[in-house]
Amino acid sequence: MSAKIIDGRKIATDIRKKVVDDVKRLKSKYGIIPNIATVKIGSDPQSDLYLSLRDKACLEVGIKSKHVELPGNVSEKKAIEEIKKLNDDGNIHGILIQFPIPKNFSQDKLVNCIGSKKDVEGFTAENMGRLMIGDESIIPCTPLAVLTILEEEKIVFEGKDVVIVNHSNVVGKPLLGLFLNRNASVSVVHVFTKDLKKYTSEAEILVSASGVPRLITGDYVKKDAFVIDVGIVKTKDGVCGDIDFESVKNKAGALTPVPGGVGPVTVACSLLNMVKTFKSCIEDVDE
Amino acid sequence: MSAKIIDGRKIATDIRKKVVDDVKRLKSKYGIIPNIATVKIGSDPQSDLYLSLRDKACLEVGIKSKHVELPGNVSEKKAIEEIKKLNDDGNIHGILIQFPIPKNFSQDKLVNCIGSKKDVEGFTAENMGRLMIGDESIIPCTPLAVLTILEEEKIVFEGKDVVIVNHSNVVGKPLLGLFLNRNASVSVVHVFTKDLKKYTSEAEILVSASGVPRLITGDYVKKDAFVIDVGIVKTKDGVCGDIDFESVKNKAGALTPVPGGVGPVTVACSLLNMVKTFKSCIEDVDE
Repeated sequence: MSAKIIDGRKIATDIRKKVVDDVKRLKSKYGIIPNIATVKIGSDPQSDLYLSLRDKACLEVGIKSKHVELPGNVSEKKAIEEIKKLNDDGNIHGILIQFPIPKNFSQDKLVNCIGSKKDVEGFTAENMGRLMIGDESIIPCTPLAVLTILEEEKIVFEGKDVVIVNHSNVVGKPLLGLFLNRNASVSVVHVFTKDLKKYTSEAEILVSASGVPRLITGDYVKKDAFVIDVGIVKTKDGVCGDIDFESVKNKAGALTPVPGGVGPVTVACSLLNMVKTFKSCIEDVDE
Repeated sequence: MSAKIIDGRKIATDIRKKVVDDVKRLKSKYGIIPNIATVKIGSDPQSDLYLSLRDKACLEVGIKSKHVELPGNVSEKKAIEEIKKLNDDGNIHGILIQFPIPKNFSQDKLVNCIGSKKDVEGFTAENMGRLMIGDESIIPCTPLAVLTILEEEKIVFEGKDVVIVNHSNVVGKPLLGLFLNRNASVSVVHVFTKDLKKYTSEAEILVSASGVPRLITGDYVKKDAFVIDVGIVKTKDGVCGDIDFESVKNKAGALTPVPGGVGPVTVACSLLNMVKTFKSCIEDVDE
């Protein structure tokens, strides 16, 4: 039997519809629309392309975007000042930093200047900590996309054997927090793991974000597992993910494709987070 | 061959010596000694006993203790005000909340009122988030004790298969962050896990904090594993831990006993954290 192939684009479309409705409702209630600022330091063609795609996605759902463009040789102090200005600006309802930033900047330091209420990406220490202790206010977009896909498929988390191939701050760590908060058993493996297959082949839910094209072949997967492919790499044969689609599709119970799986859901989840920070900015006036 | 039995009391004594030296050095440099406040709401005999033991431990290393005792029927608002006063008090260098607190209080809300610099137990969302992203400023005492024991034994973390039996906010979650930051492969299991033995029997490092007396017998343990017992329960036969000492000691490579293992190291680590918050209060004057 072939795995159910998850239609990420369909899920993303549904999320965007919800975002459009929420933005309309909040506009009619408060008379304002979300205004999200992106801080960009220096210039990078890939990054500029990504930014223009995000602007377009925002425009389509009724969210305003503002860019704060700083030269590549700006001082860290000045960049921090700019972020703090956005924190204090009542007309800004969310802040993102466009990565990559120049290497002489401390990514952690910059990110942690963002006020936790305006932290669209959920990368600040405070939002990460909240997520870990079970107070999931802002969830980083990629982990949120994975969660959304599983919830969409009515997966029960409690007691499930979950394996995450990634231990980064933006994917693996928040994701494991989400699974633990839902009482799954979670293993986190990565490039330093001695025997990857020993772990992945026991997973009922397998989330892979290694960035290694087709790392996970059929023999790495447990029969009927729910397999989520977070990897995306451009190869000469086109875009591909962590999962070897051909060999896994006959073994897994469900599988997200690349492209058309986690990617579009992640973009839509970013819009969801913008609405969330907007709401917390305009509704939590007493804090 | 029998496992090496780790002497937690010896490690704790060494830590306390270091704390005494640090307190002396900081006193001669700044002319002040650490002053740690404990907020206690209502009364609980067990809690009072614990508090008096901690006061004694503080006294022995030259740390001052102050109690803020609030009646059990105090309002949450008033309790929060008292914590905020301690945050603003330049003569207080660390704050703890004595648990249990009355059930009508939100533990998370109260803990997160503590300024992150004075958060002796590392329980605030910000300190938890920092730990998770690899900026380990204040580490909760029990996870710090586990880390300290392994470091004391010169254990290499990278690539090790680690299993943690506990997924609480105060033990399992921070501990898994510490292991992931050091590039171990980590599995977190708990009461909802379907097949505990399948996990534990593959662990090169096994940390158990289930609170179930003698849950982990020899057949749950991999040969030569490093086994750390965080459990402590009073039974009619005396105090015992998660680990069935008799059957595990002939299989594990190293083993912490109960009592005399993680417990005393945890108490000593709490003193270490007091010195840490003291230093960050008196030295980070520019923030």
